[in-house]
Amino acid sequence: MNLEQARKELISLQERMSAYNHAMSLLSYDGETTAPRGTAQNRGHSMGILSEIMYKLSTGKETVELLEYLDENKDALDAREKRMVYLLLKDIRFMQKIPMDEYVAYQKFVVDCQEAWYKAKQASDFAAYQPFLEKMLDYTVRFARYAAPDKDPYDYWLNEYEPGLSKATLDAFFAKLRERLVPLIQKCAARPQVSDACIKGDFAEDKQEELAYWLMDVIGLDRDHVGLSTTEHPFTTSLGSHLDERITTHYYAEDVSYSMFSVIHEGGHALYDTGSDEDLAYTVLDGGVSMGIHESQSRFYENILGRSKGFAKFAFPKLRQLFPEEMKPYTWQDFYKAINRVQPSLIRTEADEVTYSLHVMIRFELEKRLFAGELKVADLPKEWNRMYKEYLGIDVPDDKHGVLQDSHWSFGAFGYFPSYALGSAYGAQFLAKMKETVDVDAALDQGDFSAINAWNREHIWRFGSSLTPAEILENTFGAPFDPAYYLDYLEAKCKDVYGL
Amino acid sequence: MNLEQARKELISLQERMSAYNHAMSLLSYDGETTAPRGTAQNRGHSMGILSEIMYKLSTGKETVELLEYLDENKDALDAREKRMVYLLLKDIRFMQKIPMDEYVAYQKFVVDCQEAWYKAKQASDFAAYQPFLEKMLDYTVRFARYAAPDKDPYDYWLNEYEPGLSKATLDAFFAKLRERLVPLIQKCAARPQVSDACIKGDFAEDKQEELAYWLMDVIGLDRDHVGLSTTEHPFTTSLGSHLDERITTHYYAEDVSYSMFSVIHEGGHALYDTGSDEDLAYTVLDGGVSMGIHESQSRFYENILGRSKGFAKFAFPKLRQLFPEEMKPYTWQDFYKAINRVQPSLIRTEADEVTYSLHVMIRFELEKRLFAGELKVADLPKEWNRMYKEYLGIDVPDDKHGVLQDSHWSFGAFGYFPSYALGSAYGAQFLAKMKETVDVDAALDQGDFSAINAWNREHIWRFGSSLTPAEILENTFGAPFDPAYYLDYLEAKCKDVYGL
Repeated sequence: MNLEQARKELISLQERMSAYNHAMSLLSYDGETTAPRGTAQNRGHSMGILSEIMYKLSTGKETVELLEYLDENKDALDAREKRMVYLLLKDIRFMQKIPMDEYVAYQKFVVDCQEAWYKAKQASDFAAYQPFLEKMLDYTVRFARYAAPDKDPYDYWLNEYEPGLSKATLDAFFAKLRERLVPLIQKCAARPQVSDACIKGDFAEDKQEELAYWLMDVIGLDRDHVGLSTTEHPFTTSLGSHLDERITTHYYAEDVSYSMFSVIHEGGHALYDTGSDEDLAYTVLDGGVSMGIHESQSRFYENILGRSKGFAKFAFPKLRQLFPEEMKPYTWQDFYKAINRVQPSLIRTEADEVTYSLHVMIRFELEKRLFAGELKVADLPKEWNRMYKEYLGIDVPDDKHGVLQDSHWSFGAFGYFPSYALGSAYGAQFLAKMKETVDVDAALDQGDFSAINAWNREHIWRFGSSLTPAEILENTFGAPFDPAYYLDYLEAKCKDVYGL
Repeated sequence: MNLEQARKELISLQERMSAYNHAMSLLSYDGETTAPRGTAQNRGHSMGILSEIMYKLSTGKETVELLEYLDENKDALDAREKRMVYLLLKDIRFMQKIPMDEYVAYQKFVVDCQEAWYKAKQASDFAAYQPFLEKMLDYTVRFARYAAPDKDPYDYWLNEYEPGLSKATLDAFFAKLRERLVPLIQKCAARPQVSDACIKGDFAEDKQEELAYWLMDVIGLDRDHVGLSTTEHPFTTSLGSHLDERITTHYYAEDVSYSMFSVIHEGGHALYDTGSDEDLAYTVLDGGVSMGIHESQSRFYENILGRSKGFAKFAFPKLRQLFPEEMKPYTWQDFYKAINRVQPSLIRTEADEVTYSLHVMIRFELEKRLFAGELKVADLPKEWNRMYKEYLGIDVPDDKHGVLQDSHWSFGAFGYFPSYALGSAYGAQFLAKMKETVDVDAALDQGDFSAINAWNREHIWRFGSSLTPAEILENTFGAPFDPAYYLDYLEAKCKDVYGL
């Protein structure tokens, strides 16, 4: 092998991987959006075969030899190539450390565990799920030990999902959040509750869809490259490269805000992905770099921009136009308050901006204790319910609306939740930096996202995954990450909405 | 290699091919139905890579060795395995005879030629397309000579699309059709024209969609395995196997019958595909065997069943329910006549049941003369227009509505059209056989397709591609194919509708 050949082969390998990823993502997207009900098994047949081929392609002997050769000669590579080799070798290095039989057994187990979770959730029956979750926790701890024997297993996974992250960082982060969020929520609760009557009603689906497309246009999505479909739960997926992005939403007749803000949230993910430099397409550097940075964008658009006073004022006339009867009794101020109502609730994905981080904090605390052996899986529901009472002041009626609500643990994603809260906090610090050069308030008043998007593209989007999350934050903040920005932002919002 | 291994490998090869086919078909289906406008290039990137991998899989050294080995040992194979090996080797044997550089150049040319056709059609500019079509004709003749030096090139392609077919058979077939169809159309034209006012109006899309799903249920499609989407032109595609079938339609507000009959037509294709024996899934024997048999089913459901008196009577109350205002002035007899109106027209795909075969006959005559060197591509538009005047009595206003209307020649499908007319004629003979044991008229009166579908499944669908078209016809007819059944059927229909 010579270096020039190997560099070409590196690109060709990623192009093939992107084609398989395109096929796999599209099969899965089709299953969520369009496919007839009875076709899951047929789709599974194809996905099984393609994922096996994909696995061999990305971890086979030829690929490993190529990547090891490039890694040995990395001084001759440019920065992007180095990063490609690093990212491609990362998963291979991980798998090399796991005994093959355990890895194969694990892959099969994940499918069973997800199914067990799904059934248990439907039946609100934690006991049926418990042995699966115990086994999954056991796998997750063991694999972390194989991969990094000297590292704390929970730290290992935190760092996997958000490079640079550790228990210590998060303990400090959440301590600061708790210190100011818990009293903030109490203060809001002590004030008269704001009404959300304005967003409740009976909203025709076709009008909601019209609103969704309007919002996509307003926030600056390029609809030639970003599609919208409906699914049970909203999500965003890239097909093949950032040149074909799909977001989904769900229309609830009784609440117009659900689809609105899910479209802006997924739209934020899609703006980030589609903002990759064009020449990153068909490489592993294409699209967003981490969950944390991704959520910093999605939650930035959804909350910081989407629920701002300026944007509420800008968007309300469109709602009035689409739903003249429903919106007749209300003003844009009513709408602004309705979409910023603070109300402790049971379900993380439905939580408001202020209480959201507490949902994440509870999961972080529980995961930490599970990994430390201080909490048994069997005691999880009891502890879950106790902490929801302690942090959010609410009673959990059953495990379906409690410990069984999220799917993450069923596919082994322990350590994944914190990035949701981190992302929100990153967003507030991005806002502070952005305001140094962009008149964000004026942009929101006018519903003109061009300067905001240009700033995000310049600092975040264009790099795709070619910089690490830490590099993006350092380059942009020019200072350490500080959750005080986020807390200041939330306090100001509550002051405004609740007149604190 | 030993035989048992090879037999297993034969199955595994087809399973992998089905997974790639699933991915490729879904990419293409997504492009037609859901994908954002600007994503074609991105999709093309993935399809290019996957089709190259697929090409290597189906024609690579390992595969050829496997199939040649099995072919040498075919006496030890069962009937299905023999047929699999035959079908898999067929394309390989073809490609082995074409010089590689020509084949590669041809693959690229097809893409250019299709684009040239599309643009020329939009601009109604045959001159711009002419050099492409000349080159395509040249390729098609030359490839036929490579593949079968002793065979007439046009016969070669006819036989490719519908095994067993030749110019001689078709000359006889079309002569019989011409003999009775031309006077039949003249007789209808001499009678007062029936009104189609009943199917024209302003029909809401959501109600048309409701009608489409109702029709799918009525004709017996299993909606757990057959999906419906909207596209510019209706089509049917299998994804991975007959267990996931998709049909598409197009709703025209001004004509309720377009979507209705396209759904029944594509539904006929889907019934045939999904009727394959379960264990044919993921093999090359899965799904319909040829264009001719496929059209015999789609046009059977669309015309022979869908436009029958019994079914018109059965379906009309549903139309009345969905479109009470539009349908108020009409009876089911008006509807029956409207959907059976005979009217020579310009566009094949919009032609009525009686004039349809003349559109095909014109294409057959022109193809024959092009291949024989008796007609130059440059003279095609003039000849096209002359024949439309001669056979259908109409003037072609421009090439967009004339010689440029169909895409087939742009991707080299010369010899493909006749199977459309043949399929229609097969259907009428199937009907005659079916009536020996099934009370078809009573079934249509009651909108109960179960006995009809059971008969088709028993005689046609279940075999997938494991029998040849000729075997299916022979086994079912128990007599030679005879277009008189079709002509009798059309004459009876015209007699009824026009009171001849």
